[in-house]
Amino acid sequence: MRSISNEKMEQLLENLNTLGIDVLLLYDFEMSRDINLHYISGHPMDAILVLTSHGDIALIPWDINLAKEHSEVDDIIDVTKYGKSNMAASAMYIKEKINKSNPIVAVNESIPYSYVVQFEQRIEGVEIYKKPKEISNLLNTIRSTKTQFEMKRIDDVAKLSNKLIKDIQKFVMSIGNQTENDLSFHVMKKMREYGAEDNSFPSLVANASRSHQIHCFPYSSNNILSDQGLALIDFGAKLNGYCSDVTIPFTFGNLTSEQEKIKKTVLKAYEAAINSIDIGVPLWKIHQSASDVIENAGYKFLTALGHGLGLSEHDSPIISSKPKDPQYLANWQEKVVENGMVFTIEPGVYLAGHGGCRLENDVMIRDDKIEILTKAELIEIT
Amino acid sequence: MRSISNEKMEQLLENLNTLGIDVLLLYDFEMSRDINLHYISGHPMDAILVLTSHGDIALIPWDINLAKEHSEVDDIIDVTKYGKSNMAASAMYIKEKINKSNPIVAVNESIPYSYVVQFEQRIEGVEIYKKPKEISNLLNTIRSTKTQFEMKRIDDVAKLSNKLIKDIQKFVMSIGNQTENDLSFHVMKKMREYGAEDNSFPSLVANASRSHQIHCFPYSSNNILSDQGLALIDFGAKLNGYCSDVTIPFTFGNLTSEQEKIKKTVLKAYEAAINSIDIGVPLWKIHQSASDVIENAGYKFLTALGHGLGLSEHDSPIISSKPKDPQYLANWQEKVVENGMVFTIEPGVYLAGHGGCRLENDVMIRDDKIEILTKAELIEIT
Repeated sequence: MRSISNEKMEQLLENLNTLGIDVLLLYDFEMSRDINLHYISGHPMDAILVLTSHGDIALIPWDINLAKEHSEVDDIIDVTKYGKSNMAASAMYIKEKINKSNPIVAVNESIPYSYVVQFEQRIEGVEIYKKPKEISNLLNTIRSTKTQFEMKRIDDVAKLSNKLIKDIQKFVMSIGNQTENDLSFHVMKKMREYGAEDNSFPSLVANASRSHQIHCFPYSSNNILSDQGLALIDFGAKLNGYCSDVTIPFTFGNLTSEQEKIKKTVLKAYEAAINSIDIGVPLWKIHQSASDVIENAGYKFLTALGHGLGLSEHDSPIISSKPKDPQYLANWQEKVVENGMVFTIEPGVYLAGHGGCRLENDVMIRDDKIEILTKAELIEIT
Repeated sequence: MRSISNEKMEQLLENLNTLGIDVLLLYDFEMSRDINLHYISGHPMDAILVLTSHGDIALIPWDINLAKEHSEVDDIIDVTKYGKSNMAASAMYIKEKINKSNPIVAVNESIPYSYVVQFEQRIEGVEIYKKPKEISNLLNTIRSTKTQFEMKRIDDVAKLSNKLIKDIQKFVMSIGNQTENDLSFHVMKKMREYGAEDNSFPSLVANASRSHQIHCFPYSSNNILSDQGLALIDFGAKLNGYCSDVTIPFTFGNLTSEQEKIKKTVLKAYEAAINSIDIGVPLWKIHQSASDVIENAGYKFLTALGHGLGLSEHDSPIISSKPKDPQYLANWQEKVVENGMVFTIEPGVYLAGHGGCRLENDVMIRDDKIEILTKAELIEIT
């Protein structure tokens, strides 16, 4: 079932027509993912999607059985009829549907460079729309506020995540020699029991020796979780396609004064961020409220403060600073807090030799209210 | 620690110089992965890599702590000094290292189109090498034979996978009402016990109702695994960065005549493929030996027969048909079986309403011998 509403589809088509675009082509395969394919078609992955400015949608999937079960499109094209070339198949579809010698084809920013080069060579007269960032901005804006259908699903995955938060609290309150892997498995097993189809990403479980890595690598290990210092779990569930994303920081034993300062700074930055959220507030100001706290404490704020949640765990909008870089700034759009937005708030401080700390919850803006959907908080074990 | 050998690095630089390329720029971030970054730098992910034709390597990572621990490069550049713009940082590095007003910068095929467009706009006089497919062919050729260092690591992950195959046999021989998820967890728990840092991909566990999907979605569910018909598990482990990839097909209960035919066809195709492997044999002929069996039985062969294994679970070379499509053919290179190659053999038949079957093992070519590293075979439970 597709996520885009009829109203949002109209908005997308209107924008394509205004820009003089005949076809939007989306590419989602292993090396280069584009969640808009799932969003617009209902088909989860591994396909080309062709959307004409009249609103015709064709899907050219790798797995046609899967597409028949999941997609909501006008045509599903069998790539084996085109020598397994999805490019040949999409070329034929565009020729059939667009009665024009020089159709303008827009692509999203993430499509592989090589695909575009070959596409231009292949289809005589086709013109690639040269502003992929404009296209991604358009799609991101559409996805950055959720429909009722999506908000319901995000409510569900948030509820499930709150049960997991309680499970994690129990696990850690009675911890002995369990490892990072043990906690990772426990969370995965519980989330499947509760009906999640999957992690939204592999749980990151870092003990004190690894928590200074923003995203620890490997994701979890056989390290003893409860070693003295700062530790954390960053996990997300996926339920009916929709993602949550939560980080619970732990402290084990007596902290050093530096560790104590890191912890307090993160909690203060989190509070500042949450308190700054209000309808109409520019997102970069929310970021700044947290980054001011972190930088005033003498640390660097290395990441964005948060990101949208939806069919992917990193959806639109991003809660980040106003770009300083002139080129980034030129492609940047100021976004403000609006009803329908769902995003994480996740300030963190990461200091090699001392550890890292991050607190993360998921926030939804609904009926002019700020709802903190998930209930993660610091757990201190002394 | 980086995987590329000094000899292979020389080969890469020689090729870049022959093509008149001054800089190779690789991009690996969430939306667009390029395993060559890990291969050349030792850094696992989320960075830009700049390699000059003189052999200087710089890494511009998202997580600088992680890069310091894992990478083996000449420079690690702190992106926060460049307004968090990795493009600005790489532009500066190229300017510093390449004493030329119009440096030619090559990119790999998977780099996002939008990144290239912005890069061209940003750096005055920079010229993007317009044949990304040539670059990926070059890198794939280098990665398609493994060094001694890599073969040792692949041996290790294959041994670990053989223990998992035995665990799965035990699990299935005494199966009751366990679900697809139960088997998926069992395999993940065991692989971590054996020291794997992770799955190389989420285990695909499909019971009879889902095995007709080439890659079932969701990856595993609370379906009872032992329902009558054709089922399978497709799993891989990652150990010290290197991947295995194995599929064990199951039959539960008495098969229908169609299911029986699917099963026999797959086993026959697998045997034909294995028997056709020999030093110097073109890879497309190995594919054909299996696809002939499948097509002669009246089925379609929907996928490639196999793919390389290495730092990623889909490495070079691919064991596939000679492309029919003229454009694919123009970019295609015939590869033959060589010492150092490691690849999967995984024929399958997928028929909605009847189910699917696939058998997959990992093959290494070493000292002119064909070694079947993993020991998966059909398990029949009546």
